[in-house]
Amino acid sequence: MFKLILSDPSIFKTSFEAISSIVDEVQIEVDSDGLRLNAIDRSHITFVHLDLKESLFDIFQCDKPIKLNIDTEELMKVLKRSKSDDVMELTVDGGNLIVTFEGEVKKTFKVKLIDLEYDTPTPPSIEYPVKISIPIGTLKETIQDIEIVADRVEFNINQDVLKLKAVGEFADAEVEYLHGEKVLETVKAVFAIENIKEMLKAEKFADNTYIALGNDMPLTLTLELLNEEGELSFLLAPRIEEE
Amino acid sequence: MFKLILSDPSIFKTSFEAISSIVDEVQIEVDSDGLRLNAIDRSHITFVHLDLKESLFDIFQCDKPIKLNIDTEELMKVLKRSKSDDVMELTVDGGNLIVTFEGEVKKTFKVKLIDLEYDTPTPPSIEYPVKISIPIGTLKETIQDIEIVADRVEFNINQDVLKLKAVGEFADAEVEYLHGEKVLETVKAVFAIENIKEMLKAEKFADNTYIALGNDMPLTLTLELLNEEGELSFLLAPRIEEE
Amino acid sequence: MFKLILSDPSIFKTSFEAISSIVDEVQIEVDSDGLRLNAIDRSHITFVHLDLKESLFDIFQCDKPIKLNIDTEELMKVLKRSKSDDVMELTVDGGNLIVTFEGEVKKTFKVKLIDLEYDTPTPPSIEYPVKISIPIGTLKETIQDIEIVADRVEFNINQDVLKLKAVGEFADAEVEYLHGEKVLETVKAVFAIENIKEMLKAEKFADNTYIALGNDMPLTLTLELLNEEGELSFLLAPRIEEE
Repeated sequence: MFKLILSDPSIFKTSFEAISSIVDEVQIEVDSDGLRLNAIDRSHITFVHLDLKESLFDIFQCDKPIKLNIDTEELMKVLKRSKSDDVMELTVDGGNLIVTFEGEVKKTFKVKLIDLEYDTPTPPSIEYPVKISIPIGTLKETIQDIEIVADRVEFNINQDVLKLKAVGEFADAEVEYLHGEKVLETVKAVFAIENIKEMLKAEKFADNTYIALGNDMPLTLTLELLNEEGELSFLLAPRIEEE
Repeated sequence: MFKLILSDPSIFKTSFEAISSIVDEVQIEVDSDGLRLNAIDRSHITFVHLDLKESLFDIFQCDKPIKLNIDTEELMKVLKRSKSDDVMELTVDGGNLIVTFEGEVKKTFKVKLIDLEYDTPTPPSIEYPVKISIPIGTLKETIQDIEIVADRVEFNINQDVLKLKAVGEFADAEVEYLHGEKVLETVKAVFAIENIKEMLKAEKFADNTYIALGNDMPLTLTLELLNEEGELSFLLAPRIEEE
Repeated sequence: MFKLILSDPSIFKTSFEAISSIVDEVQIEVDSDGLRLNAIDRSHITFVHLDLKESLFDIFQCDKPIKLNIDTEELMKVLKRSKSDDVMELTVDGGNLIVTFEGEVKKTFKVKLIDLEYDTPTPPSIEYPVKISIPIGTLKETIQDIEIVADRVEFNINQDVLKLKAVGEFADAEVEYLHGEKVLETVKAVFAIENIKEMLKAEKFADNTYIALGNDMPLTLTLELLNEEGELSFLLAPRIEEE
């Protein structure tokens, strides 16, 4: 018996906005604890991890662990058709994931599961010297500020501010955000703006957003649901700048 | 003497949104009863019928019957420049239809009438086994749901629901709408989504929308103004699916 | 010492929306009276003049006159990143104009000043027989009305109305606006719609908009801030129509 019911499809929708822009195919694992996925893009630049606890769902029935291999673009087309006040149901029938949205009308989509040799990548475990929180909307706008001058951005965190900066051909840009956290050292690393924008497509997942950083280390961006009912995190490889 | 005044141009605007996407040229007939047009697209797939009674107009002066042949795209460009609180006036001057919108400013457009051999197609009269009503906004959204998997849609009406469905390469879709009408048999027919979307451009014409259907018969979609002051209807040929 | 602070960047933003669509490079002159620029486009069709008095600024420090040569497109990219509730600061550092927006975050952009042989064009001084005022939003919409039939527009002012008109291939258009001013003669001139649309990009500069016109004379469009704290004006060469 496999049946998940969620009264707000928007967590799924916003997660897959980001996921489908990073990876073409993904393996969703479901067991009695919840639903999760780990994936890495072809170029091994972005690692993405989604974890939704069974307590988040209105109904969560999963007798035995199941793996669902799915084309993220096809699933995204379906999720886009949901409204925030629809009730979403996920079931499996033969080779299909059945996605139902029930609101004013009842919409049923059968999305073909795909054959996939999938070596689930292991989520890297990294110890970071610095961790701060920032509203995701602020981060998104800041990235758009930097984007007008360059396609790479330096993240620089010191004891007072998160500084995003870039040097362009015709102009330089620098944005400072007072983070208000206890930070003891200064760290910096450079990333491709394009990759950061992919992650930020999940902006509706949560207000609670965390950035973890170290010198020339990967960036970890974590979005957390309330009551620890779920988490979406990204780990982005740094660009090593030629001096 | 020919002069029509209508205090809300939006009925004309939304009608011609649909009409101009279906036919390039049209003959508008006006006599003392009102204004009407009948037209069929080049491929003979969609028949469109517009009927606006003289009682709908604030002023309706038409001494003798008149036929106005017009390029629908040119007329649409003009109608788009109207605002819902403008007063629209239609008159004729030599070879031109004069369209005036009076609001904060007074806008006068002269649209050239065209030479046209026009055999007015006769509105087909079809007896349908099944007829239901549906809010046009709901129908529009449902078509957008189906469109993500295919370019054709099966309309299927049984005693409880209107079901729209399609089988796609990567996913299938099915949307159910509880119609709440007395329907005694099940009927179905398949249509091209592109043609349905053309008709739905007239969505602002009326909330009262009716669908008439029979097995492999054309679809009739009718939008009716209050007090029987006007009607816009479409008749769409079915696609016969190869099994 | 050079430092200008303005509590609303939108006057700059809307000015340069228009200026950057007319000229690629511009020389901004600042002295103790305020900031101004005079520029003319490559084809010598549009002359633009901006004048912001020192009293408009929250802080205005300018010890000695300074000339800032700048690429308008690069500056516009930066100004687009401002929000209306940001505080804008302009300073100069070596070869850069430093533009700072301070709101929820602090954004600092360094825009490279350019080498430019710049012969400041002298603002032409023209005596006009007719001058009226019109809300800029109304003028903008009227131009969009005319644009559906042609790419040139005749401005025609008589004692009662400003009439904008054009004759097209398939339709003619004429829009009348009651100006309510004392006008003693009738004047008309023809302009390219494209050039008028460039000027109208500054629509947020001011509600007070004035049009000055004479027979086959240039059009002067003037936008004035309250309390004579600033002015943005355009002078547009007429098109002489072949009869």
